Amino acid sequence: MHTPRQGRLDGPVCRIEIFDPWEPALAGVDQYERLEVIYWLHLSRRDLVLQSPANDGNARGTFSIRSPVRPNPLGTSVVKLVRIEGPNLFIQGLDCLDGTPLLDLKPDRALFTPIAPPQDGDFQVAAAVKE
Amino acid sequence: MHTPRQGRLDGPVCRIEIFDPWEPALAGVDQYERLEVIYWLHLSRRDLVLQSPANDGNARGTFSIRSPVRPNPLGTSVVKLVRIEGPNLFIQGLDCLDGTPLLDLKPDRALFTPIAPPQDGDFQVAAAVKE
Repeated sequence: MHTPRQGRLDGPVCRIEIFDPWEPALAGVDQYERLEVIYWLHLSRRDLVLQSPANDGNARGTFSIRSPVRPNPLGTSVVKLVRIEGPNLFIQGLDCLDGTPLLDLKPDRALFTPIAPPQDGDFQVAAAVKE
Repeated sequence: MHTPRQGRLDGPVCRIEIFDPWEPALAGVDQYERLEVIYWLHLSRRDLVLQSPANDGNARGTFSIRSPVRPNPLGTSVVKLVRIEGPNLFIQGLDCLDGTPLLDLKPDRALFTPIAPPQDGDFQVAAAVKE
């Protein structure tokens, strides 16, 4: 099971397929050069609190690594959009196996500005932060 | 319901609580200045294929915006870690409501290098990309 871990924007072109009735929800996605993709790592174990990815006896907390083995095996990638054809998105930078269920798709946070009018919370900052 | 949309790294300090048995999975998280947080936007509608956040009659595809209204209402934030106290993480940059269920927590992709030995897929690039 070889997949480019963490993805790379010059990696192989992958295809994401959107099922009915959600194809029209792709309207406007082509405006964005990069997308955030969230998927369910369906073959992953979910029971390891500590793990040793390098198999070197050095145990690490599951939340301190990006291993696919986690209580909720959610993977996220920031991918480059190559093109959209109907319900199919062709993208680069994905790091999952063929057949992985897609959960969500949205513009990369760095490229997106909220469309609804500003609201109070948008401007709230910390008074002081004790590190 | 006011929350700083999309979060901001100088925003209010928020608390994330990890429930048993997952507290030990935080081991090593304190090495990272920024974390990726994934949560379930439990109060969101899930049935809109098109939506108009500005209420201006301009309908947009759900996947072309970062609205909380989506088929799988998953929110992601990149947050700044302030400190960890037992099962509690204090962070800045979150954009969700109090009581939102946490699904996953991992180092920011930009700060993380895989720990397991390299594998073939890591080096695979596109031969040619037809845009």
